[in-house]
Amino acid sequence: MLNVESKDVHQCSQGWVPVYADQAQQLAVMSIGFLLSSRDDAVVWRGPKKNAMIKQFLSDVYWQELDYLLIDNPPGTSDEHISTVENLKKYKPDGAVLVTTPQAVAVADVRREITFCRKTGIRILGVVENMSGFVCPHCTACSNLFSKGGGEQLAQQCNVPYLGSIPLDPQLTKSLEEGENFMNSFQTSGTRQAVMGIAEMILTQTNDKHS
Amino acid sequence: MLNVESKDVHQCSQGWVPVYADQAQQLAVMSIGFLLSSRDDAVVWRGPKKNAMIKQFLSDVYWQELDYLLIDNPPGTSDEHISTVENLKKYKPDGAVLVTTPQAVAVADVRREITFCRKTGIRILGVVENMSGFVCPHCTACSNLFSKGGGEQLAQQCNVPYLGSIPLDPQLTKSLEEGENFMNSFQTSGTRQAVMGIAEMILTQTNDKHS
Repeated sequence: MLNVESKDVHQCSQGWVPVYADQAQQLAVMSIGFLLSSRDDAVVWRGPKKNAMIKQFLSDVYWQELDYLLIDNPPGTSDEHISTVENLKKYKPDGAVLVTTPQAVAVADVRREITFCRKTGIRILGVVENMSGFVCPHCTACSNLFSKGGGEQLAQQCNVPYLGSIPLDPQLTKSLEEGENFMNSFQTSGTRQAVMGIAEMILTQTNDKHS
Repeated sequence: MLNVESKDVHQCSQGWVPVYADQAQQLAVMSIGFLLSSRDDAVVWRGPKKNAMIKQFLSDVYWQELDYLLIDNPPGTSDEHISTVENLKKYKPDGAVLVTTPQAVAVADVRREITFCRKTGIRILGVVENMSGFVCPHCTACSNLFSKGGGEQLAQQCNVPYLGSIPLDPQLTKSLEEGENFMNSFQTSGTRQAVMGIAEMILTQTNDKHS
């Protein structure tokens, strides 16, 4: 998605140097993918090895000064989530953004993640609904791929902020396939506006705390 | 999806009695969801507890005589997959069906799962491409939601059978939301045909072995 698949991580005296996804070196990326010898390699690791790697990504990467650190976790409430929370606690993280799709089975998973955040004392910045409708490029009618509004209902029921929805937009998915910068390439897109709106809501909340 | 969310698992002298999803008691289901006191409960378990539960689902459930046992695993190659393979080995499982969506990032994950199956000696029954296009209910034009044919290409590259593709069909997703039997309700649907074709290909391969 960030067009960095073939890049390598290097070692410097301060630790691992992350991969930069942009020329201005503002977006630093770290992934286990950079450490594999081939893209077909399976990372057949049980929890303890995954936990050690999460710890290392936080302590041994030379991140330098960062405005924001985003950690993309898989769905669920298992090793990855417990280790992330445990290792971040001392840095007082801003909170969690929970992403769902509209179907009942996805919403049910995110409902359990809300319970997890509350149990572990992680602030919930809000819920995003992804794959929220599809605009047909042929007739411009918007269809629901799944049911509609599951994310918003969940946010209301659980009394957490609803950050907004992102449709399944072929322009966006194509950009992600090709490692193209969607936000630059489609300035007038409604999907771009939706993403910006969500980002602004998150920034407002985290700035409250930082100022 | 199977309309069993509120059902409970009972204990008999032979072990846990699974939940039956149909009146004829032909489809037995076991899930950790049946063991939670509330549907909001987060199962905050590290690997070892998950591994113990997988083992118990195979040994302590009173499955009775089964034609097929399907185990639905999350994406990846971690605790769930290692434990499933380790615990099933002695029963000589028929093999693995690998499900991808068309995007490059999903295909890359399934490519690693193929490596995992080969390393652990699990036969690959084939690859299915899910969310493969969307038929607009307004204009009936078919659009690619993501790129097209990623699953088929992967199967060719890795020399494993390609079982077929299933489109994102609002009739199917709605049925799954409502716990309705899609296969009975939409007898003439192209999506139903696609699912049947995939099922038949899998049965042919597994019958070779059983006969």
